[in-house]
Amino acid sequence: MANEISHGMPWDKMEEECGVIGIYGPGKDVARLTYFGLHALQHRGQESAGIAIGNGEDIQFNKGMGLVTEAFNEHKLREMAGQVAIGHVRYSTTGSSLLANAQPLVFRYLKGMMAVAHNGNLTNATEQRHNLAVTGAVFQTTTDTEVIVNLLARYNQSSIEEGLMKTMIDIKGSYSMLVMTEDRLLGVRDPHGVRPLCIGRLGDAYIFASESCALDTLGAEFVRDVEPGEIVVADKRGLTSIKSMIRAPRAMCIFEYIYFARPDSNIDGISVNRARRAMGRQLARECPIDADVVISVPDSGTAAAIGYATESGIPFEEGLMKNRYIGRTFIQPSQEMRSQAVRLKLNPIVKAVEGKRVILIDDSIVRGTTSGKIVQLLRQAGAKEVHMLISSPPITHPCYYGIDTSVRKELIAATKTIEEIRQAIGADSLYYLSEEGLLNTMVDQRADLPAESYCTACFSGNYPIDVPQGVDKFTMEGCGC
Amino acid sequence: MANEISHGMPWDKMEEECGVIGIYGPGKDVARLTYFGLHALQHRGQESAGIAIGNGEDIQFNKGMGLVTEAFNEHKLREMAGQVAIGHVRYSTTGSSLLANAQPLVFRYLKGMMAVAHNGNLTNATEQRHNLAVTGAVFQTTTDTEVIVNLLARYNQSSIEEGLMKTMIDIKGSYSMLVMTEDRLLGVRDPHGVRPLCIGRLGDAYIFASESCALDTLGAEFVRDVEPGEIVVADKRGLTSIKSMIRAPRAMCIFEYIYFARPDSNIDGISVNRARRAMGRQLARECPIDADVVISVPDSGTAAAIGYATESGIPFEEGLMKNRYIGRTFIQPSQEMRSQAVRLKLNPIVKAVEGKRVILIDDSIVRGTTSGKIVQLLRQAGAKEVHMLISSPPITHPCYYGIDTSVRKELIAATKTIEEIRQAIGADSLYYLSEEGLLNTMVDQRADLPAESYCTACFSGNYPIDVPQGVDKFTMEGCGC
Amino acid sequence: MANEISHGMPWDKMEEECGVIGIYGPGKDVARLTYFGLHALQHRGQESAGIAIGNGEDIQFNKGMGLVTEAFNEHKLREMAGQVAIGHVRYSTTGSSLLANAQPLVFRYLKGMMAVAHNGNLTNATEQRHNLAVTGAVFQTTTDTEVIVNLLARYNQSSIEEGLMKTMIDIKGSYSMLVMTEDRLLGVRDPHGVRPLCIGRLGDAYIFASESCALDTLGAEFVRDVEPGEIVVADKRGLTSIKSMIRAPRAMCIFEYIYFARPDSNIDGISVNRARRAMGRQLARECPIDADVVISVPDSGTAAAIGYATESGIPFEEGLMKNRYIGRTFIQPSQEMRSQAVRLKLNPIVKAVEGKRVILIDDSIVRGTTSGKIVQLLRQAGAKEVHMLISSPPITHPCYYGIDTSVRKELIAATKTIEEIRQAIGADSLYYLSEEGLLNTMVDQRADLPAESYCTACFSGNYPIDVPQGVDKFTMEGCGC
Amino acid sequence: MANEISHGMPWDKMEEECGVIGIYGPGKDVARLTYFGLHALQHRGQESAGIAIGNGEDIQFNKGMGLVTEAFNEHKLREMAGQVAIGHVRYSTTGSSLLANAQPLVFRYLKGMMAVAHNGNLTNATEQRHNLAVTGAVFQTTTDTEVIVNLLARYNQSSIEEGLMKTMIDIKGSYSMLVMTEDRLLGVRDPHGVRPLCIGRLGDAYIFASESCALDTLGAEFVRDVEPGEIVVADKRGLTSIKSMIRAPRAMCIFEYIYFARPDSNIDGISVNRARRAMGRQLARECPIDADVVISVPDSGTAAAIGYATESGIPFEEGLMKNRYIGRTFIQPSQEMRSQAVRLKLNPIVKAVEGKRVILIDDSIVRGTTSGKIVQLLRQAGAKEVHMLISSPPITHPCYYGIDTSVRKELIAATKTIEEIRQAIGADSLYYLSEEGLLNTMVDQRADLPAESYCTACFSGNYPIDVPQGVDKFTMEGCGC
Repeated sequence: MANEISHGMPWDKMEEECGVIGIYGPGKDVARLTYFGLHALQHRGQESAGIAIGNGEDIQFNKGMGLVTEAFNEHKLREMAGQVAIGHVRYSTTGSSLLANAQPLVFRYLKGMMAVAHNGNLTNATEQRHNLAVTGAVFQTTTDTEVIVNLLARYNQSSIEEGLMKTMIDIKGSYSMLVMTEDRLLGVRDPHGVRPLCIGRLGDAYIFASESCALDTLGAEFVRDVEPGEIVVADKRGLTSIKSMIRAPRAMCIFEYIYFARPDSNIDGISVNRARRAMGRQLARECPIDADVVISVPDSGTAAAIGYATESGIPFEEGLMKNRYIGRTFIQPSQEMRSQAVRLKLNPIVKAVEGKRVILIDDSIVRGTTSGKIVQLLRQAGAKEVHMLISSPPITHPCYYGIDTSVRKELIAATKTIEEIRQAIGADSLYYLSEEGLLNTMVDQRADLPAESYCTACFSGNYPIDVPQGVDKFTMEGCGC
Repeated sequence: MANEISHGMPWDKMEEECGVIGIYGPGKDVARLTYFGLHALQHRGQESAGIAIGNGEDIQFNKGMGLVTEAFNEHKLREMAGQVAIGHVRYSTTGSSLLANAQPLVFRYLKGMMAVAHNGNLTNATEQRHNLAVTGAVFQTTTDTEVIVNLLARYNQSSIEEGLMKTMIDIKGSYSMLVMTEDRLLGVRDPHGVRPLCIGRLGDAYIFASESCALDTLGAEFVRDVEPGEIVVADKRGLTSIKSMIRAPRAMCIFEYIYFARPDSNIDGISVNRARRAMGRQLARECPIDADVVISVPDSGTAAAIGYATESGIPFEEGLMKNRYIGRTFIQPSQEMRSQAVRLKLNPIVKAVEGKRVILIDDSIVRGTTSGKIVQLLRQAGAKEVHMLISSPPITHPCYYGIDTSVRKELIAATKTIEEIRQAIGADSLYYLSEEGLLNTMVDQRADLPAESYCTACFSGNYPIDVPQGVDKFTMEGCGC
Repeated sequence: MANEISHGMPWDKMEEECGVIGIYGPGKDVARLTYFGLHALQHRGQESAGIAIGNGEDIQFNKGMGLVTEAFNEHKLREMAGQVAIGHVRYSTTGSSLLANAQPLVFRYLKGMMAVAHNGNLTNATEQRHNLAVTGAVFQTTTDTEVIVNLLARYNQSSIEEGLMKTMIDIKGSYSMLVMTEDRLLGVRDPHGVRPLCIGRLGDAYIFASESCALDTLGAEFVRDVEPGEIVVADKRGLTSIKSMIRAPRAMCIFEYIYFARPDSNIDGISVNRARRAMGRQLARECPIDADVVISVPDSGTAAAIGYATESGIPFEEGLMKNRYIGRTFIQPSQEMRSQAVRLKLNPIVKAVEGKRVILIDDSIVRGTTSGKIVQLLRQAGAKEVHMLISSPPITHPCYYGIDTSVRKELIAATKTIEEIRQAIGADSLYYLSEEGLLNTMVDQRADLPAESYCTACFSGNYPIDVPQGVDKFTMEGCGC
Repeated sequence: MANEISHGMPWDKMEEECGVIGIYGPGKDVARLTYFGLHALQHRGQESAGIAIGNGEDIQFNKGMGLVTEAFNEHKLREMAGQVAIGHVRYSTTGSSLLANAQPLVFRYLKGMMAVAHNGNLTNATEQRHNLAVTGAVFQTTTDTEVIVNLLARYNQSSIEEGLMKTMIDIKGSYSMLVMTEDRLLGVRDPHGVRPLCIGRLGDAYIFASESCALDTLGAEFVRDVEPGEIVVADKRGLTSIKSMIRAPRAMCIFEYIYFARPDSNIDGISVNRARRAMGRQLARECPIDADVVISVPDSGTAAAIGYATESGIPFEEGLMKNRYIGRTFIQPSQEMRSQAVRLKLNPIVKAVEGKRVILIDDSIVRGTTSGKIVQLLRQAGAKEVHMLISSPPITHPCYYGIDTSVRKELIAATKTIEEIRQAIGADSLYYLSEEGLLNTMVDQRADLPAESYCTACFSGNYPIDVPQGVDKFTMEGCGC
């Protein structure tokens, strides 16, 4: 599961950009259902939250900064009555106009009103934005979503479905997106299927969500995943599917399985938890170590650590305690504490590691800033040996499809050898899961999806979708949603 | 001066829509100057406040709900460094997207960034919005300002001045508007000159403001008013004037002099305070009454009451005490207090009116809901007679140029005779200043502006600019800025 | 009326310490009535507000920092049901435990619960606090009120009335105080009657309030003032009066009439507004000046200015415009604006003073920091002459009875002659009302109260109650309530 | 570790009352160190937080509602400079005067100022409060701490140590308490040692904290636990110990080991994590079950589950996913979601339990409201069998020593047999760890502390300290601190 660390206290993890949920449910309290669904997707974005609701006549919306609980209160929810709703949680970089960038984006156009919630990143947003600007378009946010909105408005002279089909021809990149009119809901996933999107059913209501854990939270039944390139419409006629005419290779983000998604979600037919355990078992086969105990960096490394322990027979223990209350607004430690700031968040359980040879499992290393401190904590707690094992291959390339991996030069594995990283973090040994091992593990989970079905660009540099070449004044840093 | 009563506790006054201020001042703390300038314009709008600032490269902005002091803090001001800034205070009707409607509106377009702050109301916004939507434009707010922004972006393929000139040909209605690029500031006033806009100078810096009292507050020197139809550019070349090619009769809103503007402002060469006192003197000439004391409904009726007292020789007294602390968020009085809610705001000074024949001067009556209660308060305080005199003619027609007079049927003078109103409010006599008397007073203030120079539509129904016929789904209620 | 200027932007006025209101009203919404009553007393204290309510069984309370509207909301008011309530607004100096010092002070003691709200200042609090501490008392606030609370608890082994009578024997100084049990309400005024306290009736309910304007606001009928040294009990038996056995000369604070109280209040049978106008007339008799116009420093100087104008025949005008929106939280002006910060609050109306010989009336000068700036403003606005007239004598001595006049050396009239002050503020002439003239004016208002009935210590140094000699670690600065 | 569930969404756990930390550290930023130390103790109380600081002259303090991050900001911390500080986090029941009850309690008394932070509950507070009230004491809070404060003030005519020694003779119950003067710090633990308190060292500074994890967070070295009945003074002379003259049997709360304390803490020489794992192993020996997987209710059941897995050889898995973002302010789910509200907080990982015989380990059952829902969740997720094992004996008696176990009739094990509970929660089997097994486990951890050293009253009804008989009007519900 994604970590909850603040920008105030940097944590060495990639940041997921967004989560979306939408409900078509006449007769239901769709605002409240959306609100609780957003709770289940909170790990996908903690910087702002928003809900738009259609009542057949027009669209209302509410957005706010911070967690879902901070952005909404009972009063705001009560005000929002309707039959169809979409919601969005967003991770974003800091800026003066944050709230303006919050989603869903709601707009009026020739035919009425529309709302859009987007997870992903367009790779040709700059080009499309320029094309629109040449004909006089103005932009009030720095999001890719506003580009999509303008395209939809230009194309949608007949039906929303047709407008969306044309828009999909123009835009490149990753998008799992919800489009809502005053009385209809559409879910769409890019032709590569980079980001997840699934469909659920709650009585007569239909739900789209980034992850299946949101369906569970609402007591909804899982129907199926939206297919890559598919548009699914939920309205009074029920569900209608429009298959894209765009053929593109499937390129599901493998990092959703490694780190982003909640372990209790199933994505494209694969249990995230089971995949992570399998990665841990594969890690044990690839890198058997003679040790006394297996521990994890909580919470995201735990499933792989259990897998490793199971395969190796070395006992799994809770070796690091995480402080759940360290939130997003963070006061600077005093100078004397700065060197061990990681301790505010993680504390070793001495009895679990003292005098022992420890295998420490984490899901990934991005900049490497935290790993060294954790190894040091364990040594101070008396660990005789610390072997760091990573349940994914080294991250060597930036992501252009919706993940904030920061620039390439900050990626430790892009500039250092594994041995250099090991020395930098001070571990007795360091091992990354092999790319082959990772992909075999995924194929084991679902045999009909070959290794080529996954986007592994951050490990391999093989980008399944063309990446942008240079930027212009429209381009924001980081995410597109 | 405009009253500070909340929507929570309705007050029988027309509501001004907006105030704007802009500063071109390289080397100065333009954000802070704008902030203090907005304080001086706070009476023109208390629902939201915003500041945008250009640093030569791009534009940042901050907006918030409530008073200027609520929307900004030291931290926000410090973040905003630059050479040019515009600010806006806004009165608005309630809605879920209030903050989205707050100004300045900041946008990116083909040439970079731009910010717009607008005071006024377009009468053909619906038509223009439709024309834009047909070509694919989308709208994220319900303001007229967004229409202007889209027009500017479409036209501005060469220079901002030329884009603005073309836009002025398209839009009808009232607008005193500031347009800011990353490094330039433009002030423009509609060809009728309905709303005020003046120019000041502070050392090397140039300032545009809705009212001259903002210049005083900043210690700036008054330069001149922007002329109707004029575009004035402030940039590194100094001030440049572009006279509009549009010929239109001057139609300065006469209510700015009667009620909206601060008495310490000068608008189009006329002191507001002096105009109000002259209205009071004229009232004394038109309607001499044998009474013991002249009192006013504070604060806006005071200048006219002093004028009446001066002319008539009847002493002026403070007869009603105003509670300055009754703010915008207002808790409902209990049932037993509701009948006299006006008392939370106004309390008679018994010794000033007890046993006396009282002349009560107010600047206007809109719905008549408050006047009756004030008369009753005075009688309970022992006034022998209460003669209500209004320093303006009866308001019989709604305003389409930026003032929220509410719909016509709510205007008491639109449906009742003066005698009926007198009975409704329970005064011994009721007299309104004659339209002729009012206009003569204005001509006395500045002889070169004939009576026809003023918009008196709310009294006379003579609308100097065509008013909209019917509405569509784009149309918001109330103001356009 | 007291000014609303913040500490953030110092204003040259004495600060009133507190206002109190209490309601015994079974069957009424006493919390809401108290809330609205506090609104009417807001000018007596803007730093914190609190309400305590008794329901026959126990006492609940709510307190908050800031204005009454900031400290309370609908939710908090709804929670508070009962039959008897007291409320308090407080001015205070800054400190880390401000909220702890907010009133009413609610406490449990041997017999149950009690709440106290106090306006005034004890002169022997240090001595009494020491006596209590010797026997083991602890103090959680720095208020005099907590001293009173401890005394009440020690004495009240029989009845609350008897405990209060004994406490009155111990404490010296000024106090207008409300004491509430779970089901009873007591109002008490010190034997000198320094601070005001009056009684009202609203149907079956009884109300005590610092000023009669609060009764008006609630629609209550004025019954009478509480007499100096009197305890008045409101409970199910109605009103009961206990006359103090302490004989002391009456010493009503004359500054309540000059500046603190609202003009629409009547205190001890004298209309504040009428007294102020009489002071202005007396000023005109004492100091006739050949001038063109009389203006006031709004709002507190206005009544005296009108009096002066009436007596002298020189017309009264609005010459200074006050910005009503300058609130308590104030951002620092930039360096270039600092020299004229007064302009954020006051702006001259040029047409009213330009080319004229101006008489400027203010109620008092404390430190003299603002007066000079106002004179300068008027000169810049074109006044030919500025004659400053003060409707009270020079303040030369600090107040120990509940007013924050600051230390003696800061009082400009304590260290400078009138001519020196005139030069410092740059007026053409400066005149203060004579003490004799002031007292004659008061005697004119109510002939049965001789001049000796008023405390004039701040002018004369004749302290009617012994003042404290030296301080100890318990002593706070400024007020006692 | 204590759970973070809100009152808004009831969770079936006992609530810890308080955590304390104190630092004597001239030359250090003691406020900031205290702030970060409170973060590490946040699991012991989430309703309010406070810090008091002594600078040698006097004591300042700041308190606020909510989490430590909510109660403090950088600005508040910067204001607090000094050499000695104490901090407190508090769990409390709702009430109108919550902030008044927040700690530390700061007071002035004869000798100066003092601050007290308390974790525990007095059993004779009512009696002591009455005794104090008889002699005139007043109480502004409903806490036991204020009783202690009054006793300290009455006794402390000579030295603070002697006053504390006398106070310890009067008060009964549990207390781990910090007392701070302007320049000294004292830690004291009740003679039974019910609640933990340990000593650490950071350079020249001394630290007292409820749990050793706070020392780790600050980078401090663990020195030792404060002994039952011991007073430890930290001042310029270093550490001084005063052993109590009160002899009492050791009665350490065994629930600190089972649930309250953080696993990374060591209390009285025992690692909490290791004790929990040992309980799990003992559970496996007492109750071997033929199953496929061991899972836990996260987070507090995890250590015991790992112990069970280790002992039994059955693999441990993550079977339930916890939503970390469900906070304290919780909006009501809609009617249709209410039946499965637990799902907002916990979601089963289907692949981990589907088709499996599951052993579910939790640390305790209080009311039983949640357990049944978790069992049902697991069955819906496809578990073939669900065996619920509790790593502690049935809770049958309320706690009077600082834990909110609610009233006895709400304790499910007090009124139902184990078989009835099993049926109520719908498990295939239900087993509680035996009291004997639990105590043997503890003795294994530290052989020199016999089974009688632990308070097991909530299981056994053997109260080591007399419990109060009946209540009076002073008595609050729940905790005493």
